[in-house]
Amino acid sequence: MTYCVGMLLDRGVLFMSDTRTNSGVDNISMYRKMFTWEEPGERVITLLTVGNLATTQAVISLLDERTKAPAERRPSILEAPTMFQVARIVGDLLKETIRTTVDKGQTAESQFAATLILGGQIKGMPPRLFLIYPEGNFIEASAETPFFQAGETKYGRPILVRAYDPEMSFADAIKLLLVSFDSTIKANLSVGAPLDLQIIERDALRIGHSRRVPPDDPYFRVISDGWGEALKRAFDALPDYDAI
Amino acid sequence: MTYCVGMLLDRGVLFMSDTRTNSGVDNISMYRKMFTWEEPGERVITLLTVGNLATTQAVISLLDERTKAPAERRPSILEAPTMFQVARIVGDLLKETIRTTVDKGQTAESQFAATLILGGQIKGMPPRLFLIYPEGNFIEASAETPFFQAGETKYGRPILVRAYDPEMSFADAIKLLLVSFDSTIKANLSVGAPLDLQIIERDALRIGHSRRVPPDDPYFRVISDGWGEALKRAFDALPDYDAI
Repeated sequence: MTYCVGMLLDRGVLFMSDTRTNSGVDNISMYRKMFTWEEPGERVITLLTVGNLATTQAVISLLDERTKAPAERRPSILEAPTMFQVARIVGDLLKETIRTTVDKGQTAESQFAATLILGGQIKGMPPRLFLIYPEGNFIEASAETPFFQAGETKYGRPILVRAYDPEMSFADAIKLLLVSFDSTIKANLSVGAPLDLQIIERDALRIGHSRRVPPDDPYFRVISDGWGEALKRAFDALPDYDAI
Repeated sequence: MTYCVGMLLDRGVLFMSDTRTNSGVDNISMYRKMFTWEEPGERVITLLTVGNLATTQAVISLLDERTKAPAERRPSILEAPTMFQVARIVGDLLKETIRTTVDKGQTAESQFAATLILGGQIKGMPPRLFLIYPEGNFIEASAETPFFQAGETKYGRPILVRAYDPEMSFADAIKLLLVSFDSTIKANLSVGAPLDLQIIERDALRIGHSRRVPPDDPYFRVISDGWGEALKRAFDALPDYDAI
């Protein structure tokens, strides 16, 4: 599986993704699932990938226009006038990639599926965040649905639902996502550190704070250990059941 | 879906189940998923059911021997010498019920599947807890795996993993399960209150404290509202990310 989150905040967009890929339980690798394109001062676009690795790698290569000589590459997502059109380009590429694989004689379409989280900002417009389905269509984040999870989403969802606040600082949002990822990693072998995190600050129009968080990162360890203790204290603080 | 938990404690066994069943999103009903047989002073057996309702109702009816006249009913699970054999009887019935449905011309075996959580105690032996698969085989809880969840298990798992303690009181364990169920209900429409809870106290050899917890139960409301606040406080208490 995989676990990725894109989160819309008043201050911009925050992304986090794990790096584990697996095919079965004895074929485990580490791959980056976070990709960024920027034209400083003009636009910045980040993509998180979940699903079949061959599919997502093909999509990224096509977006990069790696079929062309390096000098001739001019990714169309750097030309599209709006984030909506960027989402459409990415969605179409995703759908085509899956269809091409299936047309080559593979029958199980779902096996080649992938889901993408796309976020970014183009000059003069607000930051936007999309969830792109294997069918190529997509939905956009809004005030009611301000974040998208993809992959192994359930373990880490309750804390997001309870603690998300659009006005929170990036530091708090990173803390929140680390708690959500930690809960998922503790429960599911198919999600694993290191984690990639990236900030796109509103109107900065370039890549913001970006980091790879290794499993032994001191802050991540403090959060991971501290959260267990904090949860137990929170649990103990609730009133006792006395109807027995 | 459904959400059910059976939890082995030093003091006995605790069970909790929701009551929502659905086929699609516009065919929602309420059914009890917790069933108990007892012979006071001799044995007590509780079964939680998850899965196809026709399958689980058939299994319960067969266990009750409802094919016979009331006076002739003598459920064999009240005769079996050990909980292991009770699990085998229940597992065989489950497998047969699914197979019979499929033999009648239905093809999608998985559609008729069900999973059961079985717990109880027979005089002279310790309390035991089993998870029974649709294939009729089963696994038993142990010190390393002291509780079983079935159905919509993921949302409510992190808190169980963090806060479970075999020495906890029944009151604390009920509080823990209510938190786990509340997180699940908040995240997933297919799980819903009222909740059924039941205690089997070690060596009591009869049904212990049993209750139906309605959605507006005052204690459940306090836990549900209080947990959101407690989580936020716990989250705020964690140190801030300061690497930005």
